[in-house]
Amino acid sequence: MRDLYHDELQALIESMVEMTKLVGAAISQATTALLEADLELAEKVISADRMIDLLTNEVEDRSLDVMARQAPVAGELRATIAGLRVVTDVERMGDLALHIAKVARRRYPASAIPASLRPVITRMGEVSGTIVGKVERLIAEHDLTLADEIERDDDDMDDLHRQLFTAMLSPQWDQPVECAIDVTLCGRYYERFCDHGVSVARRVRFRVTGEPQHREALPRV
Amino acid sequence: MRDLYHDELQALIESMVEMTKLVGAAISQATTALLEADLELAEKVISADRMIDLLTNEVEDRSLDVMARQAPVAGELRATIAGLRVVTDVERMGDLALHIAKVARRRYPASAIPASLRPVITRMGEVSGTIVGKVERLIAEHDLTLADEIERDDDDMDDLHRQLFTAMLSPQWDQPVECAIDVTLCGRYYERFCDHGVSVARRVRFRVTGEPQHREALPRV
Repeated sequence: MRDLYHDELQALIESMVEMTKLVGAAISQATTALLEADLELAEKVISADRMIDLLTNEVEDRSLDVMARQAPVAGELRATIAGLRVVTDVERMGDLALHIAKVARRRYPASAIPASLRPVITRMGEVSGTIVGKVERLIAEHDLTLADEIERDDDDMDDLHRQLFTAMLSPQWDQPVECAIDVTLCGRYYERFCDHGVSVARRVRFRVTGEPQHREALPRV
Repeated sequence: MRDLYHDELQALIESMVEMTKLVGAAISQATTALLEADLELAEKVISADRMIDLLTNEVEDRSLDVMARQAPVAGELRATIAGLRVVTDVERMGDLALHIAKVARRRYPASAIPASLRPVITRMGEVSGTIVGKVERLIAEHDLTLADEIERDDDDMDDLHRQLFTAMLSPQWDQPVECAIDVTLCGRYYERFCDHGVSVARRVRFRVTGEPQHREALPRV
């Protein structure tokens, strides 16, 4: 019975890794679609989000099913609920990649990002990709050095986010208002994407060490 | 044992109602702070969010404790996990009220909202207040007419959100870029606030009727 339980948990972890890989592809493609005004790629991200949602529903249903059948003891119960919350964070990261793709689609055939901000958005896409890659390994391996790295990577994201505002508020800014709106929205999407990565890092750290996770600072799931 | 279990669940519902009341006060005060450039009120919302976070942690810990001690059967397990997710939605609504208060504080002594958009933002605050009030009653009473109303109220919010963009993109728009940034961010915060209300409505409806909740359209928790 216990062996079956642990096999089922392992299968759930594998599905979560698969979801996270899809989210990694989504944020990378959404960033390219945004920078290159690539409508086809934007549409691809938008339709692929449905697969992430289906996987999410499936992992959630299977988790609840395992919990209902196996009546996990206290520690296992908390671990499984923490797993459910990680799933939710990853799924939400997928939604945020989708939102970025929708901005790219809305502004096609132009790019929503002015030339002066391409380097910052490029970096935001890279940092997001780095974080989601580490989330994937963290779910699979529970290596807490990855959790620490994710927190540091998120500091880089916060710096990049501030650079967007600094650029838009500088006297050199000469873009139309729709550009300011799109840059503000995309900046928020990338920032939240990485916040959810930090949330996963803190949940995994808490499960492994029992160390408090400064919960009030977390994006809640 | 079962009586004790149900007493504990009832106490959890009462704490969730208390949390939701605090969030209702927060969104109302944040909107006033934003429109009236009321720094004191903005600071009040910002410090009160800590109480919402503490209540959230307490309700989550008690829920997990009840689940671990009482080993709920399948239906109860799903209901308790759904309750945990409602808590998360309500806590996130509190964060979004906090973000609005922070915009008010950042722009003080000016108001972040230009005169032409005051009616729209006033209505966004009212609709948000209506939704959070219905969320509170829905948690306490499980009356599904409230869930239906919340979905309709959220359609009003989506209309208001579109009105913000229409105004900013009209030829009459003559505000500086920081104003477009703040309006874009606040619009997003109000919209997400109401999305989480819809999420609660769908979770409660699903628990009561078993009717599918179109999960892919939900803000996930």
